[in-house]
Amino acid sequence: MKKIMTRNKNQNHGVPKTHPRYLSLKFRHKIIDGMKNLVVAEAGLIAHGRGECFDYIIGEKTTKTARKAIKAAVAALLIAKKPVISVNGNAAALVPEDLVKLSKLLKIPLEINIFYFKEGRIKAIKNILEKAGATDIKGTNENKMIELEGLESNRRKVDYIAKADVVMVPLEDGDRTEALKKLNKKVIAIDLNPVSRTALWADITIVDNITRAIPEMIECAMELQRLDKGELVEILNKFDNISNIKATLDLIINYIENQKEEAFKILKK
Amino acid sequence: MKKIMTRNKNQNHGVPKTHPRYLSLKFRHKIIDGMKNLVVAEAGLIAHGRGECFDYIIGEKTTKTARKAIKAAVAALLIAKKPVISVNGNAAALVPEDLVKLSKLLKIPLEINIFYFKEGRIKAIKNILEKAGATDIKGTNENKMIELEGLESNRRKVDYIAKADVVMVPLEDGDRTEALKKLNKKVIAIDLNPVSRTALWADITIVDNITRAIPEMIECAMELQRLDKGELVEILNKFDNISNIKATLDLIINYIENQKEEAFKILKK
Repeated sequence: MKKIMTRNKNQNHGVPKTHPRYLSLKFRHKIIDGMKNLVVAEAGLIAHGRGECFDYIIGEKTTKTARKAIKAAVAALLIAKKPVISVNGNAAALVPEDLVKLSKLLKIPLEINIFYFKEGRIKAIKNILEKAGATDIKGTNENKMIELEGLESNRRKVDYIAKADVVMVPLEDGDRTEALKKLNKKVIAIDLNPVSRTALWADITIVDNITRAIPEMIECAMELQRLDKGELVEILNKFDNISNIKATLDLIINYIENQKEEAFKILKK
Repeated sequence: MKKIMTRNKNQNHGVPKTHPRYLSLKFRHKIIDGMKNLVVAEAGLIAHGRGECFDYIIGEKTTKTARKAIKAAVAALLIAKKPVISVNGNAAALVPEDLVKLSKLLKIPLEINIFYFKEGRIKAIKNILEKAGATDIKGTNENKMIELEGLESNRRKVDYIAKADVVMVPLEDGDRTEALKKLNKKVIAIDLNPVSRTALWADITIVDNITRAIPEMIECAMELQRLDKGELVEILNKFDNISNIKATLDLIINYIENQKEEAFKILKK
């Protein structure tokens, strides 16, 4: 039996960089490892899978509509008085270094916020963020937290988010996005599903893979931080989230239309 | 802390039947439980998530193109000399009773075939199938199995599949589908991704959720088993898989086109 275990390369996390699905497999393994370390909930694996599929149908790249949303999001974060980045298990497992880099560049705290409570999860996420260099992490002290109304999940418990004016929520659930909107927060979402409730409720929806979107936001922040407030406000005012989501749906339609020819080419090889 | 655990209903497997996402959550929990019982591999959770997303964009229902494929598939299974149904961890976790029912109705063996080998997995899957009433289960005796060429994963090991003329593969990986095709097997696939390599390589591709497709096949089998061979051959000859997949892509395009208006209605509530 041993021989089979070692020969089954698909279970091996050392995916060769030349593998056509290298990036996708690398992040898949980060999520599975995250589950083993308590960082990721079991349902987080299923959520990751949903993301993979939506990523296929936007062509697994940062689209031009995503770039527009990223620019507006960075402008909003630069203008904000009390912005905060909410971090869940999947985000922490996938891109801890990038989250910390963005947080430091924009001087915005990270707040750990999880859907599924489990003893030790907050600590595991805190560890992964600290290992990535984070120094300003909110949401770690149960006693300091207050509860958002109308929410059943553990997501209801917030710390700095309670007083924030702009909340960035990568990988959020619809209930909480709606709750945050009802408290008049400006919400920036990163969500691969362009018509999830989070995507629809958010003020700025970045339909992109978090593993590409956060590095893209870092690049964008380095440029936009040179602008003055008037210029940033202009960027923000020019952005229309609903039109941008509709344009994203058009990109998906084009992608699928294309697949009617493209996909079948593998059969001719 | 206890209080939080009990209040967090989202982690509770007793989802109320009135919940709008009842079915989706029920099957999600079956997959998570399957992982805890060794039936489902960790990557199987991610695969399930991908399926959920593809199910969204076909509208979470058995489409008319899926019904056409189901009819052709049942005809092919009724005509076949040595048909077999390949069962992996996710399939066994989701619909063990339905798989057994279909297997008995058509007098076709079930063969356990898994991508990720782990000590005890085959046994766990065998148990779940036996509990569901299965009596003819292949692929459980390591010593009786032979290896398909050109495959690295544990999927290469086959038992009755080696001599089968028609292999039904619910939830298959592309490499093995291609390997089976190269051995001149007729392949029937159930795959929610209409352009996965499995979907493209298969002779008959049922783009549907396995939890709806197998019950639908059972219904269909009860009808078609009354027909004579000539009529079954005619059904099969009239079916064109590539056109049917393209028609499925058109249904998806329509669905997404519709979302450009439908999705935003929740914001007006």
